[in-house]
This record gives sequence, structure tokens and C-alpha cells, in this order.
Amino acid sequence: MDSIVVDGDRFGLARAVEADVPALVALLADDPLGAGRESTTIAPYLEAFRDIDADDHQLLLVVRNGTGDIVGTMQLTVIPGLARGGASRLQIEAVRLAPSTRGGGLGSALFEWAHEYGRRRGAGLVQLTSDKTRDDAHRFYRRLGYEPSHEGFKRPL
Amino acid sequence: MDSIVVDGDRFGLARAVEADVPALVALLADDPLGAGRESTTIAPYLEAFRDIDADDHQLLLVVRNGTGDIVGTMQLTVIPGLARGGASRLQIEAVRLAPSTRGGGLGSALFEWAHEYGRRRGAGLVQLTSDKTRDDAHRFYRRLGYEPSHEGFKRPL
Repeated sequence: MDSIVVDGDRFGLARAVEADVPALVALLADDPLGAGRESTTIAPYLEAFRDIDADDHQLLLVVRNGTGDIVGTMQLTVIPGLARGGASRLQIEAVRLAPSTRGGGLGSALFEWAHEYGRRRGAGLVQLTSDKTRDDAHRFYRRLGYEPSHEGFKRPL
Repeated sequence: MDSIVVDGDRFGLARAVEADVPALVALLADDPLGAGRESTTIAPYLEAFRDIDADDHQLLLVVRNGTGDIVGTMQLTVIPGLARGGASRLQIEAVRLAPSTRGGGLGSALFEWAHEYGRRRGAGLVQLTSDKTRDDAHRFYRRLGYEPSHEGFKRPL
């Protein structure tokens, strides 16, 4: 689908396929907050994957290093809306990079790619929420031009 | 589509149709933050409406009082995802109630209806962001069981 070069290393970006799901779940679980939230049963993840994949407003992105290993993921959702003059917004969820790739600029390059994707899809705004305990992530988002202008409220259903 | 009764008054809830768009834009603009963000040209709103309406994961809700006037709106998006065991999440955007209806319990009843809609669509979590200046809204969300656990980051594209 596309690729980005960071410090001479090429990373492939592609829309996830079903065979990627186990590796993506492993990435989501390899995280201080994610660890307690993911399960070892693959069936519900496969069902969720099919639901994501069937929706043209969703892009579940897979990032591969030069040897083809999955080292990152993010989910991009284009949300059309009436507010702000009928502007669509790009929402970013479920961002994970393998610990081995962090600090080398892959994260910034990936977000810049995502912003360009949003513009191509007509989004005038990008938004995401980040757990208040993730200080490092907050510094990263601020460097990329994000403003913590909103409270992010969540509630179980 | 559905109705809710608040203190003996019945309010109708329906999926928005194109003819509702001008009244919905007027509601969005009737707000301290919304006032500066909305325009008087209807074409981009109609285009956005068709994009919302074509997506089965979107529900643009219109609330009518007993005489058929539009007095409220919210946009519900079901976002399928791999994280948290493959749980979908319900996202709430663009909530507005006409000033005349506030404080009477319509807001709570509407959110309870939205939560039930999310459960029916398989969502395990509901989320929204609210501008940090909207103190009254934050108290309202906390009363409904929402936790401000996340920073809400936004960035223009």
C-alpha cells in the first residue's frame, strides 16, 4: 500500500488482513495498560476484524519492518459530521509500536502519514484520546501539534 | 423510531433526514463555542449529511418535542476495534439541546437511550470528549457515570 523511510530504514504500511490479527493482538497486549485488557481467545478479535474491514470509514493499519515483522499498528476512522461547517474528522485509536522501534522517529513519521491520509479523505481535524497516565505519549502528541483542549470521558456500557 | 417521556412530556427520537439539516445546523450554532464555527451556506452541511446517512455505523439523532419542533441532536458512531477483547465502542459527538429544554431531565434520558442503543449494537464502552471550558457539561457527564480518564487531543489538518 505505502511505505515510509525513517533514518534509512524502510517500513511498509498496509491495510490489515485477517492473517495479521494474532500479531496485532500481541502488540496491543504488549503495553502496561493493554496487558490486563486482552485475552488469549482469538475468535472475538477475528469477528471484530471483519467488522472493521467491512467499513470503508475504517483503516486498520499494519506497519512492517524490513524483514516483514509487524512492528506497529493504528486504527484510523473517518467520522463525517455536521459540526464545524460539515467537516469530517479523523479519529486515531489503538496506536501501538513495538518497544524495539521506539524513539527512532517511526512514530512521528507514522502520524504524519496518518494526517496526510486524513486530508486525502477530507478531514479538517484529527482527534485522539490518551489515558492521563501516559505522560510520554502526551509529550509526543504535543510535539506533533496536538492540543489537550478536551476532557476525554469514558464509561463502560 | 422511538420516544422518551420526561416529566410527562413525550419527545420523539428519529434518524435525521435531509429536511432536518437546516434546523440541526441552527442548533449547533446556538452555543458559545459553536457560534463562531458554523456558516450560513447549507451546501457543505447537506453533503456531510449524505455521508453520515450512507454509513450504517452512524446515527444522527433528531429529538422533537410534542409540537414537532427539533429541540435536540446527537451523533452516535459505533467504532469496531480489536483492543479490549475486540469490543466495539460507542462514540458520542455533536450533542446539543435547545436552551428551552435544559435542566428538565431530557439530557439524562437521551444519554440513557444512547447507552441502550450502544449496548444493542454490541458496544462495551461509550466515549466522548468535551471542551475543557464546559464545566456544566462535565458535571453532567460525571453524574451519568462518565470518568474523565483521558486527555482529549485535537489538531487541525
